[in-house]
Amino acid sequence: MTYCVGLRLHRGLVFLADSRTNAGVDHISTFRKLTVFERPGERVMVLMSAGNLALSQAVANVLSEDFAKRAETSIWQAPNMFEAARRVGEAVRLVHHRDAEPLAEHGVDFNVSLIFGGQIGNERCRLFQVYSAGNFIEALDEQTYFQIGESKYGKPILDRVVRPDTELDEAAKCALISMDSTLRSNISVGLPLDLLVYESGSLRVTRFASIDEHNLYFRMIRNTWGERLRQVFSEIADPEWVSSASPDSLVPQGLVHEPVRARALTGDEVESVAKQTLAEGPGGTPQ
Amino acid sequence: MTYCVGLRLHRGLVFLADSRTNAGVDHISTFRKLTVFERPGERVMVLMSAGNLALSQAVANVLSEDFAKRAETSIWQAPNMFEAARRVGEAVRLVHHRDAEPLAEHGVDFNVSLIFGGQIGNERCRLFQVYSAGNFIEALDEQTYFQIGESKYGKPILDRVVRPDTELDEAAKCALISMDSTLRSNISVGLPLDLLVYESGSLRVTRFASIDEHNLYFRMIRNTWGERLRQVFSEIADPEWVSSASPDSLVPQGLVHEPVRARALTGDEVESVAKQTLAEGPGGTPQ
Repeated sequence: MTYCVGLRLHRGLVFLADSRTNAGVDHISTFRKLTVFERPGERVMVLMSAGNLALSQAVANVLSEDFAKRAETSIWQAPNMFEAARRVGEAVRLVHHRDAEPLAEHGVDFNVSLIFGGQIGNERCRLFQVYSAGNFIEALDEQTYFQIGESKYGKPILDRVVRPDTELDEAAKCALISMDSTLRSNISVGLPLDLLVYESGSLRVTRFASIDEHNLYFRMIRNTWGERLRQVFSEIADPEWVSSASPDSLVPQGLVHEPVRARALTGDEVESVAKQTLAEGPGGTPQ
Repeated sequence: MTYCVGLRLHRGLVFLADSRTNAGVDHISTFRKLTVFERPGERVMVLMSAGNLALSQAVANVLSEDFAKRAETSIWQAPNMFEAARRVGEAVRLVHHRDAEPLAEHGVDFNVSLIFGGQIGNERCRLFQVYSAGNFIEALDEQTYFQIGESKYGKPILDRVVRPDTELDEAAKCALISMDSTLRSNISVGLPLDLLVYESGSLRVTRFASIDEHNLYFRMIRNTWGERLRQVFSEIADPEWVSSASPDSLVPQGLVHEPVRARALTGDEVESVAKQTLAEGPGGTPQ
């Protein structure tokens, strides 16, 4: 599995990817899933991948070799990010054309998903999610982030904290907390992490870190966040059960809440054990 | 979808279930998924269900009607919770026997999962998760909770906060926060909630609440938790990017981190646009 998150904010973009890849729990290795396409002063594009590793690598290879040789297909020569995303989608389709059928013969789904974002020239920063079918969506103002891979554990903190005007480093911090929640819950997501923060207009990579288990900042995040969370948790009042006007009462004043109850059968309805033993089938199911 | 969580603590049990059921996003209704089997002074058993609603209802019906008629199959007469859980599993198997094949003809999986827990007489409180196959596992000391349905969004907070010796009402508060995270992320999980807190040894239901959108305590949780989370978040230092000995630096002193970069092809490697246009196939794929 994999967890990657990309954020699009007023001030730029944040990309964070784990690096674990596995073919079964007994076959785990490290593969970096974030690739940078940079021509300083002209364009910075970042690609992150999840899904079948062979497919992700094939797509990256098509983009950086085959497609790069021709102006019409090269993302190095795409006039804008939308067109670059379209070319990434075409690369996915080419790989699908080559590999989907042979994979299907082995019962393997064609499964690859990508986050692709960056900036070209004077255009604004843009962020896309590209699907297995090569189609893609763009993050607009209402949608500040895309996730691929194991996305659910790390989603609540993003939803609660990130806004379009969040500062870039604050968003990076939030992405790291989101990753920490995911790392704790899914062993198929693992360190090291690749973190890239792109400031709108810079047109070059200025903030990149590869974060392993020795990274002091990430260790601080891991420890502090859990600790402070428990502290906040303990400061919130526990519920009260007496029906009252107290705001901490779970049962409003004057009311009684009742659960759904299974009716206990009366004596007459229950057959005696002796009667049953003879009539009973071997499976213990009622006759 | 559904989200239910059951917790087993030193001091008792906590059960929380949502009540949304849907067959497609255009067919949503409310169904209470928590059922109580109570004989005060003797036993309290709680069943929560996720998966196919018709199957959940069939299992509940088998347990409270067919199986209840005979001493060997009735959970009302099970001598202990393990035996009661076995009977719940048998009810699932009976429903499977009746329904799996007709469902398969319509391409519908046999999909039901249950959390079942409670206390009988002097035995300790016990908590089980019952699978579609009727087999089940028990929560022992290392495992303080079970989740069924949409479990991932609400898991991180449980992992960070709940310990076996957590107080019951504190655990209930944590379950509500876990539910809130799930409600925000999955529209197929919805209010009202059924919350039952069972205190070990009481052998009767003493704390139950049905929580809807007007519930003041749950509204306080929803508002306060997000607010305090954002506050804690803002108090944690943002990362620094200058390579230094500062604990907030993402790049350790003296090091430079480099992302994986796609190599830009040299001029010689890139074919000219004119050359390409003629050789190109209609799909835009390289020849």
